[in-house]
Amino acid sequence: MGGEINVTERILMGPGPSNVHPRVLKAMATPLVGHLDPEFLAIMDALQSELRWLFRTENELTFAVSGTGSAGMETVLVNLVEEGDEVVVCENGVFGERMADIVERCRGKLIRIEAPWGRIIDPSDVRAVLAKCRAKVVAIVHAETSTGAWQPLEEISRIAREHGALFVTDHVTSLGGCEVNIDAWGIDGAYSGTQKCLSCPPGLAPVTFSPRAVAKIEARKSKVPSWYLDMTMVRKYWGQERFYHHTAPVSMIYALYESLRLIREEGFEARFARHELNHRALMAGLSAMGMTPFAQEGHRLWMLNAVNIPAGVEDAPVRRRLLNDYGIEIGGGLGAGKGKVWRIGLMGHSSARRNVLLLLAALADILSSAGLPFSAGEAVAKAAGIYAGASG
Amino acid sequence: MGGEINVTERILMGPGPSNVHPRVLKAMATPLVGHLDPEFLAIMDALQSELRWLFRTENELTFAVSGTGSAGMETVLVNLVEEGDEVVVCENGVFGERMADIVERCRGKLIRIEAPWGRIIDPSDVRAVLAKCRAKVVAIVHAETSTGAWQPLEEISRIAREHGALFVTDHVTSLGGCEVNIDAWGIDGAYSGTQKCLSCPPGLAPVTFSPRAVAKIEARKSKVPSWYLDMTMVRKYWGQERFYHHTAPVSMIYALYESLRLIREEGFEARFARHELNHRALMAGLSAMGMTPFAQEGHRLWMLNAVNIPAGVEDAPVRRRLLNDYGIEIGGGLGAGKGKVWRIGLMGHSSARRNVLLLLAALADILSSAGLPFSAGEAVAKAAGIYAGASG
Repeated sequence: MGGEINVTERILMGPGPSNVHPRVLKAMATPLVGHLDPEFLAIMDALQSELRWLFRTENELTFAVSGTGSAGMETVLVNLVEEGDEVVVCENGVFGERMADIVERCRGKLIRIEAPWGRIIDPSDVRAVLAKCRAKVVAIVHAETSTGAWQPLEEISRIAREHGALFVTDHVTSLGGCEVNIDAWGIDGAYSGTQKCLSCPPGLAPVTFSPRAVAKIEARKSKVPSWYLDMTMVRKYWGQERFYHHTAPVSMIYALYESLRLIREEGFEARFARHELNHRALMAGLSAMGMTPFAQEGHRLWMLNAVNIPAGVEDAPVRRRLLNDYGIEIGGGLGAGKGKVWRIGLMGHSSARRNVLLLLAALADILSSAGLPFSAGEAVAKAAGIYAGASG
Repeated sequence: MGGEINVTERILMGPGPSNVHPRVLKAMATPLVGHLDPEFLAIMDALQSELRWLFRTENELTFAVSGTGSAGMETVLVNLVEEGDEVVVCENGVFGERMADIVERCRGKLIRIEAPWGRIIDPSDVRAVLAKCRAKVVAIVHAETSTGAWQPLEEISRIAREHGALFVTDHVTSLGGCEVNIDAWGIDGAYSGTQKCLSCPPGLAPVTFSPRAVAKIEARKSKVPSWYLDMTMVRKYWGQERFYHHTAPVSMIYALYESLRLIREEGFEARFARHELNHRALMAGLSAMGMTPFAQEGHRLWMLNAVNIPAGVEDAPVRRRLLNDYGIEIGGGLGAGKGKVWRIGLMGHSSARRNVLLLLAALADILSSAGLPFSAGEAVAKAAGIYAGASG
């Protein structure tokens, strides 16, 4: 076995994890108490209350699943879908595809609504499909991490409700970075991950279920296929019964608790404005280097900036130089975007003015040293202009 | 929201989590690198290699599931059981019952072999049942945390193999505390948790699959019901393909890596001897207070000491005083043992001479102040005698 962990300091501007605030790292180093200790139960209660605030919901069944964001996705679907249920899944990227895959494993009857990658789902498509089936669930991704597309949810929620379907939404990349409003938007089942805009290490998945969703779970004819993610049992541990189910990941709960304190201190308004401003500055700089956004205009995420790799530039060597020469991680493309798209995260603690300027300078340096006509000066000046405009 | 996390220092002598070594807490506070960063991939490789050492196996498919020990149980069963498969589950406590529950959710055809709680499963019972069915899998718990019973595995493994069944074992409480020898014992699928004898926080589940188990997974006719735990995909992330599946819990991986370094430094022989000695000392002290072990003689775990609560003593008030007056956590009974049994963990970093003596002194104080004829002096002297005998 090797020596102690000795990793290089990284600026994490990929699709997650994002950089973790020192206060969250410190919280994780707190000595453990038992998972049924009254002091830990009080932390769980406080965490649930703060997650309700974060999701903007009154939903009683709101907590953190003991797994990563994908376990959150599986938790919501595996509890709400029963064998034979018609389930409409909107697919315009990797995470919609993943939902569809899970629905099939739950033996739901999958009905896909597709849009090209980078474009959003059109509510009229949802209306047309729901008119022809008896969907129990409609599922969609709010912030598609694979494409950088931001999907409006309110109209599709109304359509789903008119047709008596539960509305399920993926907020892995949106929660804590832009508005998420579970109750006002009529969402019945939602999940997120800790390692993106919450700037907590990966390992927990905040989830919330509306009373309608809970009623559907209580009326299930069959057991939930997953024991580990079965809400009929997990809710008795997070609820006041405190019935043992599995051992909660104590240190990760400490971390999430502290990361929510940081979000509370900053406030939604300031936090979302910060994410938006850094996005605008980054895109202005990238645009000065001739790079174009991948996602549809008017529907681009602030926290995950997908851009087309310039013609003639190879993906991997550039990302390798960013990592090795500057300690900066950005993401490559997923699926159809592999080798064609960079995904630049500005999430949570990583969404910072200094990160934007450094990345632009580093990227211009690398691309110009590869013979491309990009100057760091131009790109940085464009971004700086955005910041000056915002503060002026 | 409240203030920063401010928990009382606890001595964790329940069924887990156990106390975490300061080096592991420090490792968790290491700033994160990306989950596909070459430096992180090197840590994953080193971790897999050390887990093979810990499990005593050459199994290529050995890694840590991104969930707690129960997710490890679900991972092994959900991958190895297909609809209609006959699966024999040995049940003599809560965790055997949990395996049976999961097998049914996987739509396996469940065949139970039961023994009274606290007793072990008799190999001849397994032989008799296997003669009458066509079992694809035989599953059993090595260290039953609910009863404190230690189950020998070698003979049952031979019987399973003679009948062509895969052999699945639960090592949540045994791994790192007593001998576990996957290859020599012919085990095909095994899992553990990090928060017991590995003295790492809860949140990861080491698992290992034999080549026979991998062949069974590759020959599945149906998709694994769980997307999150599907080995056909997860193995491509932990393997050299590095194919993105989900975001690994980076900080927890750091923690497990450091906890394995501590185990390597101590060595199996010294570590197991420490667990055995502290168990003997504790039981000698408890016996001096008139307490009797719950599990069958000759089959008592060193790391989880289940004892019958003395007649006339109420469970909850004693545990509450231990926690409030001494900061010591011990476990109450589960299921049928509720209110009747205490479960005292001596696991990993918590298995320490000073913890044994303090607990005995504290317990004797509480019980004698309740009017019971126990003196701290006698109990401590008995335990000290065991230590003196061992070093003499």
